[in-house]
Amino acid sequence: MSDSVKKISDDLKEFAIKRDWEQFHTPKNLSMALIAEAAELVEHFQWLTAEQSQALKDEQLKEVSYEMADIFIYLLRISEQLDIDLMSTTIEKMAINETRFLVKK
Amino acid sequence: MSDSVKKISDDLKEFAIKRDWEQFHTPKNLSMALIAEAAELVEHFQWLTAEQSQALKDEQLKEVSYEMADIFIYLLRISEQLDIDLMSTTIEKMAINETRFLVKK
Amino acid sequence: MSDSVKKISDDLKEFAIKRDWEQFHTPKNLSMALIAEAAELVEHFQWLTAEQSQALKDEQLKEVSYEMADIFIYLLRISEQLDIDLMSTTIEKMAINETRFLVKK
Amino acid sequence: MSDSVKKISDDLKEFAIKRDWEQFHTPKNLSMALIAEAAELVEHFQWLTAEQSQALKDEQLKEVSYEMADIFIYLLRISEQLDIDLMSTTIEKMAINETRFLVKK
Repeated sequence: MSDSVKKISDDLKEFAIKRDWEQFHTPKNLSMALIAEAAELVEHFQWLTAEQSQALKDEQLKEVSYEMADIFIYLLRISEQLDIDLMSTTIEKMAINETRFLVKK
Repeated sequence: MSDSVKKISDDLKEFAIKRDWEQFHTPKNLSMALIAEAAELVEHFQWLTAEQSQALKDEQLKEVSYEMADIFIYLLRISEQLDIDLMSTTIEKMAINETRFLVKK
Repeated sequence: MSDSVKKISDDLKEFAIKRDWEQFHTPKNLSMALIAEAAELVEHFQWLTAEQSQALKDEQLKEVSYEMADIFIYLLRISEQLDIDLMSTTIEKMAINETRFLVKK
Repeated sequence: MSDSVKKISDDLKEFAIKRDWEQFHTPKNLSMALIAEAAELVEHFQWLTAEQSQALKDEQLKEVSYEMADIFIYLLRISEQLDIDLMSTTIEKMAINETRFLVKK
């Protein structure tokens, strides 16, 4: 895992421990929290056209970016709880995708 | 953004361009794809107890890690499309959370 | 479809027409709105134990019931837009499930 | 609750009891199962335009209708477990919506 991602993950763990939240942070519960944040992202786009979703105003873009941060936060929390290296797993999954979805010449 | 995350994001963009998928990768569509992957993660845990979700067998842990990679992949794709720096936004959001959820002494 | 469900569905259509919302109520957009409501339901339960989720206090039970109403509302809206008879389709799907998940003797 | 909806709900309960699934059907777990089905609906639409989502081919329409049945099934299971009358709650919620979203003259 990259040092900067590792640093964020460690800080998130410390944040949870300080608040005595580790007891709630089971992978099951965290997956629910993650999808709830994903839905807040979806909500921003639900009544927009594809084009409008590409041209958000500053304020909405800021809100959208925070929803994405929340998704990333829960993704890192689950990774930490399950001892998964998110970065190397992603690189591995991308290699699989390369062979699954061949480029048409 | 960390160099390694930037590299993954660039590779994902190239992957999409090569397959002529950029036309489908609007933030709206990508948010739908992201939540569909988040739901595949949830599905792994839906009938498990909290304890079982913490003690996955190797094979299921592998599958779970790939679902998480898929979520991360779409998160990076949306970030790229909206020109959001996911890492710095996450650090910013964590600072907000520090002030929103105070530690009880 | 049962008369009472048909009545609700018709009222929902009229509600949307009066507000000029029909233009937004494509199946694609409605599926996003539905999952956003489903996530609000999930949010109520994410930090609860299984037992706590079975013993909600009156106020939370009321909120939960309204989230479920919202899900049902969007389900009926999509059914109407796609000309699907939700009741008979459900009965059909249950018959399929009977053969897919056999009872162990 | 309408008689036909009540009949479906009762049959679903019997289906679960016969398979000894009641132990897994807590509101928490069922909310996860419901959102997983909602995501399967979303998946059908994620790469489609709004117009394409309105003009599904027969086979895809059939699949979509079954995803919707699955959502309805879990909605009824949660209603039953929490002793919620989904129909009357929906009518109540629609009355609230009438006052929340006023018609512009």
